[in-house]
Amino acid sequence: MKLLEIKQILETQLEHNLKSQLPNHVIADVYHYSVIPPGKLFRPFLAIAVLHDFAAGEKSFELNSPHSYFCSAIEMHHAYTLVHDDLPCMDNDEYRRGRLTVHKAYGEWKALLAGDGLLNASYGLLSKIKSSELPRLLRFITWALGPKGLIQGQVLDLSEEMKQDFATLLMTHEYKTARLIQVALCGSYMLIDYKKQSSYSENRCLVDLFKLGLHTGVTFQLLDDLTELADAQISDHERSVNPWFYFPDESLKRIHKGLENIKNLTEKHQMEAFHLVMKDYFGKIHRILNDNIENVANHQKKSVRDLVPMMSLLERLSQ
Amino acid sequence: MKLLEIKQILETQLEHNLKSQLPNHVIADVYHYSVIPPGKLFRPFLAIAVLHDFAAGEKSFELNSPHSYFCSAIEMHHAYTLVHDDLPCMDNDEYRRGRLTVHKAYGEWKALLAGDGLLNASYGLLSKIKSSELPRLLRFITWALGPKGLIQGQVLDLSEEMKQDFATLLMTHEYKTARLIQVALCGSYMLIDYKKQSSYSENRCLVDLFKLGLHTGVTFQLLDDLTELADAQISDHERSVNPWFYFPDESLKRIHKGLENIKNLTEKHQMEAFHLVMKDYFGKIHRILNDNIENVANHQKKSVRDLVPMMSLLERLSQ
Repeated sequence: MKLLEIKQILETQLEHNLKSQLPNHVIADVYHYSVIPPGKLFRPFLAIAVLHDFAAGEKSFELNSPHSYFCSAIEMHHAYTLVHDDLPCMDNDEYRRGRLTVHKAYGEWKALLAGDGLLNASYGLLSKIKSSELPRLLRFITWALGPKGLIQGQVLDLSEEMKQDFATLLMTHEYKTARLIQVALCGSYMLIDYKKQSSYSENRCLVDLFKLGLHTGVTFQLLDDLTELADAQISDHERSVNPWFYFPDESLKRIHKGLENIKNLTEKHQMEAFHLVMKDYFGKIHRILNDNIENVANHQKKSVRDLVPMMSLLERLSQ
Repeated sequence: MKLLEIKQILETQLEHNLKSQLPNHVIADVYHYSVIPPGKLFRPFLAIAVLHDFAAGEKSFELNSPHSYFCSAIEMHHAYTLVHDDLPCMDNDEYRRGRLTVHKAYGEWKALLAGDGLLNASYGLLSKIKSSELPRLLRFITWALGPKGLIQGQVLDLSEEMKQDFATLLMTHEYKTARLIQVALCGSYMLIDYKKQSSYSENRCLVDLFKLGLHTGVTFQLLDDLTELADAQISDHERSVNPWFYFPDESLKRIHKGLENIKNLTEKHQMEAFHLVMKDYFGKIHRILNDNIENVANHQKKSVRDLVPMMSLLERLSQ
């Protein structure tokens, strides 16, 4: 599996699949701006990694194949959450990925409707998947991303309940970040026609992928928050929302646990493609932290030495 | 078919199905407030009417039956559009159905997330439908209610393009109002296991229901706008958005056409239950207009006589 080639395919298909859902009207620009150019495409990459690691047969994902629709759908779902999260009544952000946020570029009502439209369109792409697994996939996705899942993560975040205690913080990350990653892993697995596993082991595989998605999601979110501490100066707002100022020890412990679990589960199922995607990601995080390790430690009122075990584990995982 | 009994069942099931999708958290109150007590339940009523008129076998809709999930799903979808439409960046409404709007009662971010949650949850209910027709139903629904459908109606409305010419106004009503009604009719039909029609006539039936939904939706919206003219005084805002001030003649003509088509299609398929639901609705509209016919005519700078043909047709349809 070559990451750059996959990235190219994912981007081309995302643009194509998005366009298939849009009206012939100037509003199409707003949808386009909300999704393209895409970010890291982390979730679609993980879905394709699962396809590579678990399919006994076909591993490519042509246009109109289940995995093509699925990857574009989860990225569009991700995009809608960002557009709505950025709105003034939510996080009130002016910039994302170095560009104006959608409501800053086009106005609030267009951002709101583009979000609603992308959400509907992501289900629109899923509905085109030709697979007997479609109903099960949809039941799982709507549970994971609906009022009991991703949305509840946003509720716990906005209501600031996540600051109450570490358990609530973890719950927030589980709902808000891990659920969509669990969808990427388990959904991709469900859509594989010929799997390496016997159907007896399929359910146990799904359970492991669900766990892997949980640890990947929570670790991803905690590491993401940690890289914010690489800057020498941190704004009051960032200080008030970053869990590393509230629960530094628990967060460090949880990252250790997450990284160990990711390592074990990936090895258990010989997930080489998944390892490749994560290696790339962990490598980037390791570089950012390593280059600014004193800032990171200072912000947490720790010594650099306290961070050595995590840094070594990150380094090992990025090799 | 007894309207009051059906209403009771629809309400009980809506509350039950909604609850099944919600987290055990105080935010559940916001979802509940957004949906319960329900409005007229016009769309679920039409769906049940189609079940009655076209099913050869079972016409009841127990909890967990396809039509139970379907009716709750379309009402929840309708509710999400209202919650988002009322937001300050959209129509900025303070009251709906005699109560504070959701964002006035609970705050903006909760209203935004409750809308997103209801949208996901409506797909969640659809995903529980046990029917081989589910994929086709989902393709139709996501087309009708996504960026090319209902959402595009909201775009044409908010951008005020609908004031440009009568064709754009009709397009707006078709997208924003008729699409969900077409979903209610055609979706309900798709989900009937044993239909009165041969499979050869099924597709022609669907085409007729699609047309019926279009005329019902557009007529419903125009009549709804017309009843606003029953008041002696009309606010500047209402004057600036009501199509009867812009296109009075075309609107009158379009209502005639709509009512004629509804009558013909209903008779063609002997849709007695559908007729019953519409009769009730037309009766209410006729009374409101009749009681204030001079206001209605004055606002349009017409004589009462100009309205006689439409009033007679409305009266006939409500008998």
